[in-house]
Amino acid sequence: MEGQLKIERREVLKEKPDFSRLGFGQYFTDHMLIIDYKEGKGWHDARIVPYAPITLDPAAMVFHYGQTVFEGLKAFKTTDNRVLLFRPEKNFARLNRSNDRLTIPQIDEEQVLEALKALISLEKDWIPTEPGTSLYIRPFIIATEPCLGVRASHEYKLMVILSPVGAYYAEGLEPVHINVESKYVRAVRGGTGAAKTAGNYASSIKAQVEAKESGYSQVLWLDGIEQRYIEEVGSMNVFFKIDGQVLTPELNGSILDGVTRDSIITLLKEWGIPVVERKLSIEELHEAYQNGTFEEAFGTGTAAVISPIGELNWLNHKMIINDGKIGELSQKLYDTITGIQTGKLADPFHWVVEVN
Amino acid sequence: MEGQLKIERREVLKEKPDFSRLGFGQYFTDHMLIIDYKEGKGWHDARIVPYAPITLDPAAMVFHYGQTVFEGLKAFKTTDNRVLLFRPEKNFARLNRSNDRLTIPQIDEEQVLEALKALISLEKDWIPTEPGTSLYIRPFIIATEPCLGVRASHEYKLMVILSPVGAYYAEGLEPVHINVESKYVRAVRGGTGAAKTAGNYASSIKAQVEAKESGYSQVLWLDGIEQRYIEEVGSMNVFFKIDGQVLTPELNGSILDGVTRDSIITLLKEWGIPVVERKLSIEELHEAYQNGTFEEAFGTGTAAVISPIGELNWLNHKMIINDGKIGELSQKLYDTITGIQTGKLADPFHWVVEVN
Ligand SMILES: Cc1ncc(COP(=O)(O)O)c(C=O)c1O
Ligand SMILES: Cc1ncc(COP(=O)(O)O)c(C=O)c1O
Repeated sequence: MEGQLKIERREVLKEKPDFSRLGFGQYFTDHMLIIDYKEGKGWHDARIVPYAPITLDPAAMVFHYGQTVFEGLKAFKTTDNRVLLFRPEKNFARLNRSNDRLTIPQIDEEQVLEALKALISLEKDWIPTEPGTSLYIRPFIIATEPCLGVRASHEYKLMVILSPVGAYYAEGLEPVHINVESKYVRAVRGGTGAAKTAGNYASSIKAQVEAKESGYSQVLWLDGIEQRYIEEVGSMNVFFKIDGQVLTPELNGSILDGVTRDSIITLLKEWGIPVVERKLSIEELHEAYQNGTFEEAFGTGTAAVISPIGELNWLNHKMIINDGKIGELSQKLYDTITGIQTGKLADPFHWVVEVN
Repeated sequence: MEGQLKIERREVLKEKPDFSRLGFGQYFTDHMLIIDYKEGKGWHDARIVPYAPITLDPAAMVFHYGQTVFEGLKAFKTTDNRVLLFRPEKNFARLNRSNDRLTIPQIDEEQVLEALKALISLEKDWIPTEPGTSLYIRPFIIATEPCLGVRASHEYKLMVILSPVGAYYAEGLEPVHINVESKYVRAVRGGTGAAKTAGNYASSIKAQVEAKESGYSQVLWLDGIEQRYIEEVGSMNVFFKIDGQVLTPELNGSILDGVTRDSIITLLKEWGIPVVERKLSIEELHEAYQNGTFEEAFGTGTAAVISPIGELNWLNHKMIINDGKIGELSQKLYDTITGIQTGKLADPFHWVVEVN
């Protein structure tokens, strides 16, 4: 990325929303980061500008062929007013892996992270401090060249927008009820499941709508080939505690390599709790349930951090997990990760990065 | 859709490009059609306005979660200056099937077709008349609500843009060389393969880039489960003539129900040529090749109409089809369909729809 980061400040700042009723991704801060790409010129013209609508040709390739990737991470404010990011370098590394799958040019991870820090620093009054709240950070790249041929675009826009958010699930840390999806498929090996790209989410909405109609808040995806092996939930990886051991699907190329997932595996190892990444079938889970060894289940992701699963419905089998209450381990993981993220707990793994 | 179609004409018309060097999807006409959707209000405010960039919030859901669908059809000008559309009702019916899969609200197919006709009528000077050229019509719908929650948008924009196009393949009717894709997967049952939605194309670009690097212009997709059964090519369905019989993959839920495909099946039946829609493995194709019964292969789609396949590369097996030359049946189908489309041949199936 050539050149200096330019900053154009908004003259009149927006009125801030009620920080006690934020919801998720509904309010946006005063400024945003934009970096342009053009073939032959590379990434250029990094700038922080007032948050405003963008203007695109109706033939911009993102509208037609979905060449786009995104990330999601968070900034937190500590009680002594320091601003912390949680493992941001992992998000930018993953953004580049997504870029590779979508044939979008690689970004300079360090330079974009520096530009992001400048943006956060400018917007630090937008970081809410209530428990469970944070400033959600959404970097994304879209193909902007106006052309209807199906091929990689020669022009892109990287943008970062910021949104103060409450807890992701309306119910808070209340255990969620999840339906095991037996009809729709999210991803298959050789596809884009391991990339954070729009199409994966577009294809998931219908399953989610149908799950909601049956009283479930999310779906648990099974693999695309045999529709037996557990993959992940909506925008979370998934963990199960069975007979004292923690199990999570291995990174098989069709699920996302979650930053929260990695953090949890690290913590569990540190704590001496056995954790295994492997193929895991829904039948195996159901057997454990029938044997009485299915102890806890939870989803993990940036938005919710930990989302305990109180009920899993697989065809006509209802599995009520831990009496529908949050498990001890789920709670401890939540407390530890959010404690580290907000600077309340020590950070032995050097996960947090301070914004000056 | 409530209300009347409003028309705002451009004051100064654009200069037209050189119609002998159009390429595909690079030039756009003077006007476009826009129809808005808002929950509670439905589709509304249908209007023809000057072609111009559109303005969207950076949080518009299409950028993040890819909730979008599109169509592609063509308008032709006859030698006596009539303007013809080819089976447009099938495209709008398919748009609604795509809408259903992507949980986008249904459109009123007839009203949108009427609005499209008004747009085409306004732009009829943009329809090129050289053989192989036409006015390509791109209807598309994008989710516009600014919100980062993963769910169906409450706001959409339907747009139709028009682009005068030359022949889709630079090589014209020259047979193309195609690589059978053994690594990447485009779609799987339960996914979005049968819908015309951005994510399907985004995921295909990398395979296409790698095919190009090996000297092939497109890839032939295999099924997502066994990676053995033939699906389709880039933006074409695919047909094979083997031992006097024409074979094409059945509509299995992961390939597109092509309008050209349907037209070809209809013509073949009319001509008394046996045509079978069924599962077809790449091994079977290769066996036919070795037996000397593999007579012709061609892709079919709106953009190219018929694209003869001269060479298929499957792992290390090269299949040269009909000596790399266009087959007799491929040529006859091309001549018949383009003849009907351009009003040069009689239209026994009532496929063409005149724009007044
Ligand atoms: C499909 C999917 N899986 C898993 C995750 C969890 O990843 P992370 O922990 O990095 O937020 C997300 C959210 O980012 C996701 O979208
Ligand atoms: C994936 C795919 N398959 C097949 C086709 C051919 O369909 P049609 O004949 O309706 O253009 C297209 C193009 O529209 C396509 O995008």
